[in-house]
Amino acid sequence: MSELHWKTSITEVHPNKIYIRGYPVDELMGKVSFAQAIYLVLKGEMPSPEVGKLIDAIFVSSIDHGAGPPSALASRTVASTGAELNSAVAAGVLAISKYHGGAIEEAMRLFIRIDERIDESEASKEEIVREILENMRKLKKRASGFGHRIHTKDPRTKKLFKLAEELGLSGRYVSIALAVEKALEEQLGKSLPINVDGAIAALLCDLGISPEIGNAFFIIARVPGLVAHIHEEKTRMKPMRKIHPEDFEYDGVRRKE
Amino acid sequence: MSELHWKTSITEVHPNKIYIRGYPVDELMGKVSFAQAIYLVLKGEMPSPEVGKLIDAIFVSSIDHGAGPPSALASRTVASTGAELNSAVAAGVLAISKYHGGAIEEAMRLFIRIDERIDESEASKEEIVREILENMRKLKKRASGFGHRIHTKDPRTKKLFKLAEELGLSGRYVSIALAVEKALEEQLGKSLPINVDGAIAALLCDLGISPEIGNAFFIIARVPGLVAHIHEEKTRMKPMRKIHPEDFEYDGVRRKE
Amino acid sequence: MSELHWKTSITEVHPNKIYIRGYPVDELMGKVSFAQAIYLVLKGEMPSPEVGKLIDAIFVSSIDHGAGPPSALASRTVASTGAELNSAVAAGVLAISKYHGGAIEEAMRLFIRIDERIDESEASKEEIVREILENMRKLKKRASGFGHRIHTKDPRTKKLFKLAEELGLSGRYVSIALAVEKALEEQLGKSLPINVDGAIAALLCDLGISPEIGNAFFIIARVPGLVAHIHEEKTRMKPMRKIHPEDFEYDGVRRKE
Amino acid sequence: MSELHWKTSITEVHPNKIYIRGYPVDELMGKVSFAQAIYLVLKGEMPSPEVGKLIDAIFVSSIDHGAGPPSALASRTVASTGAELNSAVAAGVLAISKYHGGAIEEAMRLFIRIDERIDESEASKEEIVREILENMRKLKKRASGFGHRIHTKDPRTKKLFKLAEELGLSGRYVSIALAVEKALEEQLGKSLPINVDGAIAALLCDLGISPEIGNAFFIIARVPGLVAHIHEEKTRMKPMRKIHPEDFEYDGVRRKE
Repeated sequence: MSELHWKTSITEVHPNKIYIRGYPVDELMGKVSFAQAIYLVLKGEMPSPEVGKLIDAIFVSSIDHGAGPPSALASRTVASTGAELNSAVAAGVLAISKYHGGAIEEAMRLFIRIDERIDESEASKEEIVREILENMRKLKKRASGFGHRIHTKDPRTKKLFKLAEELGLSGRYVSIALAVEKALEEQLGKSLPINVDGAIAALLCDLGISPEIGNAFFIIARVPGLVAHIHEEKTRMKPMRKIHPEDFEYDGVRRKE
Repeated sequence: MSELHWKTSITEVHPNKIYIRGYPVDELMGKVSFAQAIYLVLKGEMPSPEVGKLIDAIFVSSIDHGAGPPSALASRTVASTGAELNSAVAAGVLAISKYHGGAIEEAMRLFIRIDERIDESEASKEEIVREILENMRKLKKRASGFGHRIHTKDPRTKKLFKLAEELGLSGRYVSIALAVEKALEEQLGKSLPINVDGAIAALLCDLGISPEIGNAFFIIARVPGLVAHIHEEKTRMKPMRKIHPEDFEYDGVRRKE
Repeated sequence: MSELHWKTSITEVHPNKIYIRGYPVDELMGKVSFAQAIYLVLKGEMPSPEVGKLIDAIFVSSIDHGAGPPSALASRTVASTGAELNSAVAAGVLAISKYHGGAIEEAMRLFIRIDERIDESEASKEEIVREILENMRKLKKRASGFGHRIHTKDPRTKKLFKLAEELGLSGRYVSIALAVEKALEEQLGKSLPINVDGAIAALLCDLGISPEIGNAFFIIARVPGLVAHIHEEKTRMKPMRKIHPEDFEYDGVRRKE
Repeated sequence: MSELHWKTSITEVHPNKIYIRGYPVDELMGKVSFAQAIYLVLKGEMPSPEVGKLIDAIFVSSIDHGAGPPSALASRTVASTGAELNSAVAAGVLAISKYHGGAIEEAMRLFIRIDERIDESEASKEEIVREILENMRKLKKRASGFGHRIHTKDPRTKKLFKLAEELGLSGRYVSIALAVEKALEEQLGKSLPINVDGAIAALLCDLGISPEIGNAFFIIARVPGLVAHIHEEKTRMKPMRKIHPEDFEYDGVRRKE
């Protein structure tokens, strides 16, 4: 044991034995879903099947959003230079930052601050939300997790809230998020609906996830999408092509609805 | 439409509508697992529930392997400098390369080459495997996906093959992998068992996944583990500490077995 | 010209003509040093030969600091997995963050704040420095650019200030940095000397460089050092070795002094 | 001394003493240029002033090539998401790969192979070059370092060769590169002139640099250019803008020639 000896509480590895947060990995395999295992490795507790289902839905909601987001463009740009798959994934992950994917953590911090103020104040939730938004407006800070450049009624948001409701996992943070949405509409005189990042933020708060790893849920969800873009770039496109950030068209399968 | 107009077949995005490989994302949410959605976005086809279960098990098997692998150490090293979560994840992904995680793609290529030779030759599978391994030995090339520095009977390999069998998904590539394991033992005079990368390689071949994205399955599986290490490094350790690559100890939960 | 048309003022490229900040690149070659060209491309102005010499010294001062810093360890860890050179460089760059290399930008911001306060206040430089440090102490914020884990009299700091003096480039920010050093010693009752980051910060302020690119001077300086570590790792060490962060020894050339 | 004890021959660090390849860093500062120090740290030997001048010119030649190359676009894409400077630099470095910047290493390997064949054969240089190119043509392999998408007479190539000539540093690899250029014109019936990567490759071979770090010269040269693009993106452009890869215009300083 050297002076640099240190401790970790995630995974224990011995010859022929691997324990993830105390569970033998081979007993987890076939029994829990990848989504449940992600929750376990991040939070240290086994989620119920209901929580697992909600986590699955959160990841599915953000798995891809086409070729337009900067993460897909960064991954494709690097892939088109002949780089290895992992380099192109890394470049995409580097683009998941403040203005792209970063909304989850910031929205979580907003909802938590509101919740703390509700606990310590005598004012109503609506009053507190109005006051906090008013202060943000004065500081010219936008509320993260509201509004979307493309979607006015994001189908993912609606579905996430519906699922959380059905699974009994919609809690006080969802109701705070809805109060913020309402107050923003009053303040701005126009609708700025909760977007998918805001919805995920509210649900992760209700699940007790720390905001510091909020963005990880977006990163984990999107890596498979990035891989799909990289693979398409490498197998379908010419190397070093000029990648237009908007002028592309979907020509894949369309299914009857 | 500019001269740079291009086409993509992964995801179609319209205001308030998002289709992943032709499926409305909000219909996928709550119905398919994250693992199934990953298979869908990468392969373009909806997997059966059985395939989904096997993919879930593959991802769970590789979600983490403690603090020792270079990807965990690279992520922790970057995290300890105060970097953002996504930077630390990117550094870990960059370490998933030729000698770490990279075995999946190489093992897939070996199994596919063997399978092609079986189709075009009159010799038996055993003879072909022996011949190919003999040639590799002369070229001083090792067979990827066999042997492990820590595990002699990797619990993950056994469980993956058992699950594939139960789900009816164990095919000719698994039998090729087993033939290689047997031939290696004869050639080397000692056991060099299939490791988890080799097992995943065989199963992905049987599922019809292209080898170019074989390593993606390791990257996707491991990103959540990297996030757990980064989060622990940032919340439990001092910034800029010297991170010993071996002298650490598990002090997390132990569960009765 | 599309709707996305945009403008850039760095480099103009035409067939057989390349202008860097308005200068034909082939006229710069052989006439200006790399260090001068770096200043030109970053600041948009041609530096005098004196400024060029100081920039050269700044870059030389930070070109390498052995195998211990996290950037060298991150680069080596990734290189040891068989990754490409550029991936290993990228991992090292990702480790040049808040607590490693990041001190330059923060120290620049501190010196600029002090300078602004001197301009708008009637108090002496010494009083203002004391007041600002006192406020930082209350907020438990450390002054970046002072103190070093290994060096008590960093030879690089002394030489940088001496060269700046000789070249006539030592200005009011260097004197502010010295005032901070003095005030820190009074405040803490022990010496916390300007380190190389603090010295570079003061000199870059005197050269009129913006703090937003302060850390770039460290990144640019250190990339060659990272390449040397990556090359040594790939050619001298075994792949996938466990890289001890402290227990290494120099066995290269020693020159008579 | 632990079992993991290891050795390095790059930099020796003691309290208040830093030796780069055996030279005290503070004695190098003010005496050698950054370019000379880069050569020293990479090669382990102090270059002559002439070699230093040529290395300076090599780095200046490749410091930037406008906003069009994938490295600049990757860096800008990541910067536009609000990422830190070092993340955006890392993304640009990841794009310096096989088809972008990667030509240097490949061209060096070609020139070295030709040179080895000249040594061991009785045929003339011209015959050997013709034979090797003919074999490459049959294998559908292009010669790296020849031809450019934009420049037919790259001003950088001409200047590099002229400087090397004047400095007495043009050797047998430059003459091999010229022989390849001539043979390519005969083989293809049209001119495919040496590009800047090919010229740098020939000069690095004549300087005795190993091909494994050939691309490092491009990475080191271009990082300052990437920083300039990132800084412009962050200070002049709106976050999350759609970055057109071609439709941009230079609006910076123009100087009288």
